[in-house]
Amino acid sequence: MGHMARPAQPNRGAVKRNPERTRERILSAALQEFAANGFAGARVDAIARRAAINKRMLYHYFGNKEHLFRQVLHRKITRRQASAEGLSGDPAESLPFWFKLSCKDADWVRLLEWEALQGGNKKVIDEKSRRALATRALGRIRKQQALGFLSGEFEPGHLLLAMRSLTTFPMAFPQLTRLFTNRSVSDPHFQRKYAEFLKKFADAFQPAGGRRNKTNYEN
Amino acid sequence: MGHMARPAQPNRGAVKRNPERTRERILSAALQEFAANGFAGARVDAIARRAAINKRMLYHYFGNKEHLFRQVLHRKITRRQASAEGLSGDPAESLPFWFKLSCKDADWVRLLEWEALQGGNKKVIDEKSRRALATRALGRIRKQQALGFLSGEFEPGHLLLAMRSLTTFPMAFPQLTRLFTNRSVSDPHFQRKYAEFLKKFADAFQPAGGRRNKTNYEN
Repeated sequence: MGHMARPAQPNRGAVKRNPERTRERILSAALQEFAANGFAGARVDAIARRAAINKRMLYHYFGNKEHLFRQVLHRKITRRQASAEGLSGDPAESLPFWFKLSCKDADWVRLLEWEALQGGNKKVIDEKSRRALATRALGRIRKQQALGFLSGEFEPGHLLLAMRSLTTFPMAFPQLTRLFTNRSVSDPHFQRKYAEFLKKFADAFQPAGGRRNKTNYEN
Repeated sequence: MGHMARPAQPNRGAVKRNPERTRERILSAALQEFAANGFAGARVDAIARRAAINKRMLYHYFGNKEHLFRQVLHRKITRRQASAEGLSGDPAESLPFWFKLSCKDADWVRLLEWEALQGGNKKVIDEKSRRALATRALGRIRKQQALGFLSGEFEPGHLLLAMRSLTTFPMAFPQLTRLFTNRSVSDPHFQRKYAEFLKKFADAFQPAGGRRNKTNYEN
């Protein structure tokens, strides 16, 4: 009876699993293409080729290039957020964490760099949800200021900007990292040492009292 | 007698002045074109058009695109160095200074960004003289560490990288500056406030003793 009442659903599991895998493959190919050539320079043809799918299917899944870009951003941001979930809010922990993440996430850093070069001061793609994310990040900073993890003498926006600067710049400008430190940004030795540097340097973000407690000058 | 002994030098001042002005016009047009499209994307045609000179003349002055790029770098770096000449070495002075300079020097920041995207980990154009510059900057940092302006507990390369991060990032990623602070990086209010932030934040680079002297917790 059930069989007659609805259309047959042949091999339902496979149908469900394959589209997910296909979407995933497209998104991962798209991230690579966007990171290599920027939004403006990326070609949907090239994404389809990387994903080994035909272009019509790609449009079927994602509509158009901008929609695809939004999904790439969304997926990347969701993953980055998820990986940061356990952080305590102590900058001595979060600075090394975000630095190491940016070292693993060269594609993401490049995407932001293309966006800076191509968009400049204009609205970004997916402005609304990215603004919401920034607002949440600023809220966390205010909370960390209240808890004494971060100094209350600085504006949350300035703190966020400074922390992103310190943790993203070495990967964003690999040539400067190499010229200044004689090491490649992908060199594990550099990554370990710079993470240690940031861990110590994190003192700068803490209230003066916290900073003082760590110096040898105490008492 | 002197007049007969040598070939005539008609209008010597003008001949001397014009090539300089032409060179200058080409270099300035080239900086704009390289900043807009990167070294790989820049077109010598477009530079000639911007400089209102014919392409053959441009090649006569600069040889080829790479040579032109070297001269653009050289001119920009020389000017930046000259403008920094009076700096004391106190990071409370130099961080706001370099930040404000990067705000005025969007073309330069974009040039570095293109280089990062297109060159990645490869040698940069003019590697040798840029390495020499970095070595000099590291030497100044060591001196400032010895003088007590900068903390000796950090590696000079890490300090240089962190200082460049803090002072360049807001202009390198104008979209993030806007999302985090609600202000455009070109907004004078933002520039003034962030310069003040960096001035305070400069404490982080100083020896712990110096840091302590500035807190209200003293005695």
